Amino acid sequence: MSSTEDLAIGIDIGGTNTKFGIVNRNGKVFHRGEIKTRKHAEVAPFIDELYLSILPMIEYAGGPARIRGIGVGAPNGNFYNGTIEYAPNLSWKGVIPLAKMFREKFDMDVILTNDANAAALGEMSYGAARGMRDFIVITLGTGVGSGIVANGHMIYGHDGFAGELGHTMIIPEGRYHPGTGLYGSLESYASATGVARTAVEFLNSRPTVESLLRQYANEEITSKVVFDCARKGDSLSKEVYSYTGKILGMALANFAMATSPEAIILFGGLCNAGDMLFGPVTDSFEKHLLPLFRNKIKILPSELPDDDAAILGASSLVWDKERGGN
Amino acid sequence: MSSTEDLAIGIDIGGTNTKFGIVNRNGKVFHRGEIKTRKHAEVAPFIDELYLSILPMIEYAGGPARIRGIGVGAPNGNFYNGTIEYAPNLSWKGVIPLAKMFREKFDMDVILTNDANAAALGEMSYGAARGMRDFIVITLGTGVGSGIVANGHMIYGHDGFAGELGHTMIIPEGRYHPGTGLYGSLESYASATGVARTAVEFLNSRPTVESLLRQYANEEITSKVVFDCARKGDSLSKEVYSYTGKILGMALANFAMATSPEAIILFGGLCNAGDMLFGPVTDSFEKHLLPLFRNKIKILPSELPDDDAAILGASSLVWDKERGGN
Repeated sequence: MSSTEDLAIGIDIGGTNTKFGIVNRNGKVFHRGEIKTRKHAEVAPFIDELYLSILPMIEYAGGPARIRGIGVGAPNGNFYNGTIEYAPNLSWKGVIPLAKMFREKFDMDVILTNDANAAALGEMSYGAARGMRDFIVITLGTGVGSGIVANGHMIYGHDGFAGELGHTMIIPEGRYHPGTGLYGSLESYASATGVARTAVEFLNSRPTVESLLRQYANEEITSKVVFDCARKGDSLSKEVYSYTGKILGMALANFAMATSPEAIILFGGLCNAGDMLFGPVTDSFEKHLLPLFRNKIKILPSELPDDDAAILGASSLVWDKERGGN
Repeated sequence: MSSTEDLAIGIDIGGTNTKFGIVNRNGKVFHRGEIKTRKHAEVAPFIDELYLSILPMIEYAGGPARIRGIGVGAPNGNFYNGTIEYAPNLSWKGVIPLAKMFREKFDMDVILTNDANAAALGEMSYGAARGMRDFIVITLGTGVGSGIVANGHMIYGHDGFAGELGHTMIIPEGRYHPGTGLYGSLESYASATGVARTAVEFLNSRPTVESLLRQYANEEITSKVVFDCARKGDSLSKEVYSYTGKILGMALANFAMATSPEAIILFGGLCNAGDMLFGPVTDSFEKHLLPLFRNKIKILPSELPDDDAAILGASSLVWDKERGGN
């Protein structure tokens, strides 16, 4: 790291762990660390521990003058208010004024948004969306999130909660999603949870079809198990990916006709399935597009390194603000 | 009209007629006129006739120095290129460089976009979206179009064709749309054509149910006929609106979760149904939203006067450009 270059701190708050790091404009992570989010029933001691962990890094990186700001990605993070609002996976209930609390503790500029928006800005700063002004990032993890960039600006919407594409309905009266009370949302199909659920449904509805998955009890079947079986050549497991890809492709076509992006970038654990997922996604995507849009919009995998993706995404909030992103 | 105020020309090109007018910043239309689009198999004589019709208006309004520019709304209009591209309802085939041709003829600044985007900018300049930075306009006419505004900017997308929400799929493997080859798109249900189709389907699938609609042959049933029968209290006709509203509300919930607008504005002939449509739309909309979004987003009727809406929308492109809209 050159001794004069600007740096940003990226903090990603997850339900279990909080990861952080110090990053330069090219997306190189110089220092990184991790604390347990879940350990802290209250937010104040969480911030205390985080501060004590990050402080030595800041000194080591050349002191606070080098740091342009702190970017925070958090579940249900609201960009406008700098708050975390009613996040179901965190023990801190209600509305938490996190950016303000961080600002007071660190005496630095703090920008906060949800994790999927942070991922999208990370792709724009360092990843597959470099140079793009119109793109969508879909995060395929335990849930399905999204960040939509149009005209070079992240869409936060009227209240700061835009980009909830995972909760859009794709199958009317389809699967019930206990977390939201909605039926047939994309997240019920195209998340890790959705993949496991599809596998169990397939096993139950086709009792005579052989499958490696039958070695597992229903409750042992996870997307990881389906992935491993599919890689071993298991037909039914591969079909689970075809089905997931078909539904995801239908949804992506809808999203593409809304904002006409240059590319849609898929991010998160499910993408490890590679062509098993991207093949059916792309086929279904093209089929469900208005002819005007066909063969123009790229479906790309994330280019952020798995381990640092969340830190990079969060840190890019700082560069996006400097760029006048919002 | 004060003798110094700025004016804009609005031109709306439709498949049958082209309407035009001279408009001030408050949305007052001072002069208006109309020529037949369909009369001209070629675009050059169309522009000649339009020029000869508009020229006296310009002189009457105080001369070309008063006019800040020309805004054009056209089917398949591309904002970036100023072109009309492969518009199925026009006789001019292929890609027409319309803005350039207008610019050369009128020697004025010309901005072109599709009719639904123009409608959205019209609502922002003069109508229901005044003061809003995040909203969506859905045009419910023969087809279903849309314009999406986020962060105060119209979303044109990577290629200038964003906002095709009418072609997004709402019922997987649903109605076939002969114009696009797609199945289950919103336009197949929530357009005037879709309303007529729903009425015919209901009549055929419930042969014993009495209805005023049975006075008409299937091919005589239009959305106007359904509207008239519903107003006379016909239950089946009213149910057609409930069904249409339910499907439209599902789609609007999806759109809302994407860009988190302050309001969704419904524009066009179908809105004349008033509460028969808005009631079921709002119920279905709220039901299909993630709880986080409920009871926050308004569903509003257009506030542009029916007769001048298209001219107003087109003229507002001029003001939007001055505002730095894009």
